[in-house]
Amino acid sequence: MKKTILITTVIALSSTLSASLLDDAKKAGLKPIPTDKKELMKLVDNPKNELNKAKVELGKTLFFEPRLSKSNLISCNTCHNLAIGGVDGLSTAIGHKWTANPHHLNSPTVYNAVFMDRQFWDGRDPDLEAQAQGPMQAEPEMAISKEMAVKRISSMSGYKEQFKDAFGDNNITFKKIADAIGAFERTLVTPSRFDKFLNGDKKALSTAEQKGLKTFMAKGCVSCHTGVGIGGSMQKFPLVKPYKYANIGDFKGDKNGMVKVPTLRNIHQTAPYFHNGAVWNLEEAVKIMGETQLGIEINDKDTKSIVTFLKSLDGEMPNITYPQLPAVTSTTPKPEVK
Amino acid sequence: MKKTILITTVIALSSTLSASLLDDAKKAGLKPIPTDKKELMKLVDNPKNELNKAKVELGKTLFFEPRLSKSNLISCNTCHNLAIGGVDGLSTAIGHKWTANPHHLNSPTVYNAVFMDRQFWDGRDPDLEAQAQGPMQAEPEMAISKEMAVKRISSMSGYKEQFKDAFGDNNITFKKIADAIGAFERTLVTPSRFDKFLNGDKKALSTAEQKGLKTFMAKGCVSCHTGVGIGGSMQKFPLVKPYKYANIGDFKGDKNGMVKVPTLRNIHQTAPYFHNGAVWNLEEAVKIMGETQLGIEINDKDTKSIVTFLKSLDGEMPNITYPQLPAVTSTTPKPEVK
Repeated sequence: MKKTILITTVIALSSTLSASLLDDAKKAGLKPIPTDKKELMKLVDNPKNELNKAKVELGKTLFFEPRLSKSNLISCNTCHNLAIGGVDGLSTAIGHKWTANPHHLNSPTVYNAVFMDRQFWDGRDPDLEAQAQGPMQAEPEMAISKEMAVKRISSMSGYKEQFKDAFGDNNITFKKIADAIGAFERTLVTPSRFDKFLNGDKKALSTAEQKGLKTFMAKGCVSCHTGVGIGGSMQKFPLVKPYKYANIGDFKGDKNGMVKVPTLRNIHQTAPYFHNGAVWNLEEAVKIMGETQLGIEINDKDTKSIVTFLKSLDGEMPNITYPQLPAVTSTTPKPEVK
Repeated sequence: MKKTILITTVIALSSTLSASLLDDAKKAGLKPIPTDKKELMKLVDNPKNELNKAKVELGKTLFFEPRLSKSNLISCNTCHNLAIGGVDGLSTAIGHKWTANPHHLNSPTVYNAVFMDRQFWDGRDPDLEAQAQGPMQAEPEMAISKEMAVKRISSMSGYKEQFKDAFGDNNITFKKIADAIGAFERTLVTPSRFDKFLNGDKKALSTAEQKGLKTFMAKGCVSCHTGVGIGGSMQKFPLVKPYKYANIGDFKGDKNGMVKVPTLRNIHQTAPYFHNGAVWNLEEAVKIMGETQLGIEINDKDTKSIVTFLKSLDGEMPNITYPQLPAVTSTTPKPEVK
């Protein structure tokens, strides 16, 4: 009898916790990835690059296309590997001729990047379509010129038809290549248990995870890590105290010292952390954020609790069939590895 | 009326051509990839590394696993890219720290590699399981030590269970890593229209392709490019006349000058050709083979005809779902890019 009462009380308490917590989370701006497909489409679509099935499929093909790099060796997927959280697992991105990013910048995840307000750590591009043009051309990344990219893709039969299906005409341009990649990337969203919770399924998070969420909000993390992206806005960094590893690389944010807030979705899978990938441990990352951004010391217990919540953001990855790319032809420009 | 007779005659002739051609092809040792699953399994299985679903799935995961390289950047799939014919599209393989293969060797395709008598250009390994151990450890390829490979994989939760399902126990060893990769590679077979023809479907090859096959056999190409692998034995190279591009790299075959005959399956998709990847054009490759191996000059018409046949060897690629790999943990050894 006592046991029953205890259990009932715990459930009641837990239910109360969930109810007010859900309310608080919504008030704090946290939003789920829509479960309704039409609503989701509205959220991820770009009026300037309307999604269609053929474009997304072409974009996937191009995302995995190593012939879009000068060397034939590097694709978008090299640094934004969809098998390992959409990142490369390195502190600093490495590209053409094994060149490290000159500013010691870490490759951000491409999963849920559609929910970011801006792209790149300094937010210099407004959307994924603009972003996709950058790494292809960057010397330390894929190092290809616009002209060479178009020549390579145009030379391979099979692509013409795919472009026609995607864009209505088969005139292959660099912009269309980037637009198709952007379209594919818009589909890379990963709904998690936390989304279920936000959608009203109170049991989707364990009591420990709910406590973690409460701590996450109470400490102020949610002031920047909010919205559908649980991040994605531009914020001053460091804000209150200096960043412990500021000496690694020379990145200082945009001209106003603003840095893009990374998404926390799948954060457990995307170590190392920060713009310079200096921190491998999620607990340490949480404590540093407390210091630099909130000016508080987050103790071990609270840190652990927050990390418990963060793990509930591990999402369901989209099912991706590895593409088959067209064969090179006699007119395909040869790889240049030097 | 005349037209009808003509058509009937052409069909009759074509049918006769097919019938004797099929017979000749079989006599020449050309064999189809079995359509019967059990027969196929018998052909591709390794008694020392019995295939099972869990092992193949684990092998696929490990094939795409970049943390099996010292840098975290290179997986088996980097040089044997399953999206582009199981190769890298480069003359010379490039690996850790952007190092080119010191002998200027070209990455052979992993598709249908199970049908090769030996592995590597010099045939130094007997099977895929032995082969898989090489590139992981080779300094200019993945550059990881056995110990580091085991440490990395063991540190990531999720792998333990996969090894248990695959091998019956969760003790992760370097040999098991290679065995799982070998098991996956054994499934990478690509039945083509030519296999349908060999299985008795005479219409599977066009008249032009059948003529090409006839030329292919008449010129003697089939003496080495035969069996299920349409290649795969060890042969003297060059045999009759010197190889035009012998000066590129220093590879001379095994101690007896024997070189593994590459498969011609999907050859249209796996340029560049030869052990040193010196030739990008399939027509040129055919002519060079005539010279070096058969001591004959294959004229333009016959070359074209052979190439027409070779394109019928483009196979149906297996459907591969891109894997999701486990996340690194605090005990996972860090990438070393230098």
